[in-house]
Amino acid sequence: MIKIGLDDLEDLALGATFLGTGGGGDPYIATLMTRRAIETHGPVTMLTLDELADDDLVFACGNLGAPTVAIEKIMGIDQPPAAVLALEKHLGRRADALMAFEAGGSNSMMPLYIAATLGKPIVDADGMGRAFPEMQMVTFSIYGASGSPFALASEHGDTVILDIDDDKRAEYLARGIAIRMGARSAKASYPMDGKTARRVAIPGTTSLCQAIGANLRQSRAQNREPFAALIEMLSGTHYGHAKVLYAGKVTDLSRETRDGWAMGKVVIAGDDGAPLEIQFQNEFLSARQGGSLRAIVPDLVCILDSEMAQPITTERLRYGQRVTVMAVSAPPIMRTEAALAVFGPAGFGMEDNFVPVEDLE
Amino acid sequence: MIKIGLDDLEDLALGATFLGTGGGGDPYIATLMTRRAIETHGPVTMLTLDELADDDLVFACGNLGAPTVAIEKIMGIDQPPAAVLALEKHLGRRADALMAFEAGGSNSMMPLYIAATLGKPIVDADGMGRAFPEMQMVTFSIYGASGSPFALASEHGDTVILDIDDDKRAEYLARGIAIRMGARSAKASYPMDGKTARRVAIPGTTSLCQAIGANLRQSRAQNREPFAALIEMLSGTHYGHAKVLYAGKVTDLSRETRDGWAMGKVVIAGDDGAPLEIQFQNEFLSARQGGSLRAIVPDLVCILDSEMAQPITTERLRYGQRVTVMAVSAPPIMRTEAALAVFGPAGFGMEDNFVPVEDLE
Repeated sequence: MIKIGLDDLEDLALGATFLGTGGGGDPYIATLMTRRAIETHGPVTMLTLDELADDDLVFACGNLGAPTVAIEKIMGIDQPPAAVLALEKHLGRRADALMAFEAGGSNSMMPLYIAATLGKPIVDADGMGRAFPEMQMVTFSIYGASGSPFALASEHGDTVILDIDDDKRAEYLARGIAIRMGARSAKASYPMDGKTARRVAIPGTTSLCQAIGANLRQSRAQNREPFAALIEMLSGTHYGHAKVLYAGKVTDLSRETRDGWAMGKVVIAGDDGAPLEIQFQNEFLSARQGGSLRAIVPDLVCILDSEMAQPITTERLRYGQRVTVMAVSAPPIMRTEAALAVFGPAGFGMEDNFVPVEDLE
Repeated sequence: MIKIGLDDLEDLALGATFLGTGGGGDPYIATLMTRRAIETHGPVTMLTLDELADDDLVFACGNLGAPTVAIEKIMGIDQPPAAVLALEKHLGRRADALMAFEAGGSNSMMPLYIAATLGKPIVDADGMGRAFPEMQMVTFSIYGASGSPFALASEHGDTVILDIDDDKRAEYLARGIAIRMGARSAKASYPMDGKTARRVAIPGTTSLCQAIGANLRQSRAQNREPFAALIEMLSGTHYGHAKVLYAGKVTDLSRETRDGWAMGKVVIAGDDGAPLEIQFQNEFLSARQGGSLRAIVPDLVCILDSEMAQPITTERLRYGQRVTVMAVSAPPIMRTEAALAVFGPAGFGMEDNFVPVEDLE
C-alpha cells in the first residue's frame, strides 16, 4: 500500500500536466490546495485497482469547465469535497475511494485533494489515460459504466445532481450548468463498484504521472537533454511510442473561451520545414504540417518549453515561446474501435481517419 | 372536499390563461393531457390550504422554459411526473399533495395532470397569484420557503436535482439547464410542509381561475359584453380593482426567444389616443401610452380578443388581432415591500416605481 505525501506532489503535477496534453487544468492552484490538505490531514493512501474490494464504491472526481477560467477564478476550498458529499448524500452511501476521471495537471491532483480532506484513499487509475475535453470521453463509458448519477458543485456551495442515461447528453447538460457556475465546477461522477472499476478504468495512471515527472525532474537536475530520456522511459510503458515532432517558436495563437471550453489553434514555426499547426479544445487534438497530419487524437500531442521541458497547457501558451512538440501513442485500450468512435477524430467532428502516430512521418 | 373532473377543465384553462397575463403557457396541450389522465384515472381531489395536515409534504409543480417553444415542442407525457418522482426519490419521501407555482394556462393545469397520473390531490393555491417569468418570483420565497431541493426533467427522462440556498441563483442555473433541455423542462420544487404552505401560498387561486373561466363562458353563452361582467366579478375577490385600459388592433410586434424566455414588445393602436405599448418577458410586464404608465407589475396586464374575450398568450399574439387590454390589481400579499422587491418593477430592471393600477389614469 503506497502513501502519497508532500514530496510526491511536484512529480505528480509535472507528469500529469504532460499527460494532460495541454488540458486537464493548470496544476499550480490544485497543488497548493493539496499541499495544504496533506500538511493538515497527513499522507493519502493510494490503492491499485486490484486492491479494491469488489463492492467498494468509487467516484471519479475532478473539474468540469474551461481551463482559461480556472487560472483566474480559483476553486473554492470546499467546492471539490461538496460534489463528493452531495453525491454520497443522494446515494445514501459513502464512497470508499476516489479516482481521477482524467490525467491532467489539476484533474490528477483534485481526487488527492478531496481524499486528503475527507480521509479517503485514492485509486491509481483514471478514465482517459490523458485529458479529453468532454465528460463522456472516458473508458468508463466506453466499456459500460454510467456517468450517472453525478454531482456538480459551485463555489457558492450550490450542488446539482444529474441522472441521465446517455453520457453524451449528460455532458451537454453538465456543460450548460458549468457555464452558469462561471465555467468552473467540481464534479463527482461515475459511481461504480470496485469490480467494475477494474474492468473499465485505465490502470496505473497516477503512478505513471509520478514517473514521468520524476524523469523530467532528474533530467533537469543532471542538466541532461530531457526529451530522449522521456522517450526511452515511455517505451517501457503501455504508451510505448513517443517522439519529438517539431521544435520552434509560437508565432500565432488564437484562443477563445466558448461553449464552456478553451478553443483555438496555435502555430509553431522553426527551421524544420513548414510551420506546425495544432488545434485544441481544452486539449491539443491534432498536429499538422504543410497539410500533412503528424499526430491526432487519441494519441497525445504535448507542447513543452524547449529549455526546461515544462509541459505547457493551452491557457499558458504565449506568442514567442520556444517550444518542443512531442507525440505519444495512446495505450491499446484507447485505440479500440469502440474507443475511437468516442474520442477518435470523429468524436471531435474531424474528417480524418485515425492513424497511429508511429505510422506517421 | 372538491373533485375536479372533465367538466371543470375548460373553465380552469380559460381563467388560468387570463391570470397568466400573457404567460404561464398555452393551455391547449396541457388540457388535452389532463383530460386524458382524468378519463383514465378519474377526478382529482382539490384540498384547500386549511385542509392540509401540518406535516403533509407539498411540491409546487409546472413547466420552466419559453412558452414560444412549448407550443411547438410538446411536453412528453412522462415528463411532468418524472420531476415529481425524482424529487420524491431524492427526499426519500412521497409528496402528499401538489400545487401550482403560478397561475397560467399550462401551469395551472400541470399539477392537475400529474396529480391525476400519480393519484394525489392538488391544493387550491399557488405562489404568484398570476404568472411571472422567474422561479424566485413567488410568495413562497418572499415569505421564507426555499425552492430547494428541486427537480427538472426533460422529455428524454433526464432528471436534475438542484440544491441551492438562494432562489434567484437557483433560477439562473435552472434556466441554463432548461435551455439545454430545449427551453422546455418540467419542474417539481419548493418542497414544504402543510403548515408552511398555509403561511406562504396564495390561497384559492385554482378555484378563482375556474370562477373567471365560468364568468367568461357565461358571457359568451348569453351573448353579453364580457368585460363589465368580469370586472364586477373580480371586485368581489382579493384582486379587487379591474378595468379596461384600451381597445384596438395589434400594429407592431417584436418577439424573440432569448435566454430561455419569450421576450418582446407589442403595440396596439385604436381610436382612444396614442397607441398602447406593452413590454413582455414571458408575461406582460407594463403598459404605457404616450409616455405615461397605465399599469405595471405585479399588477396584471391581460390581452383578450375583443370579440370572444379569449385571453391571448404572448406566443399567440399576431399582427392585426383586434384586442382589448385589461389591468387588474394584484392581491395585497403581492404588493408588500418584500414582494415588490422581488417582482415589482425593480425585479425586472425597470426604473419605474410601482404605482397601483387603481391610482393610474
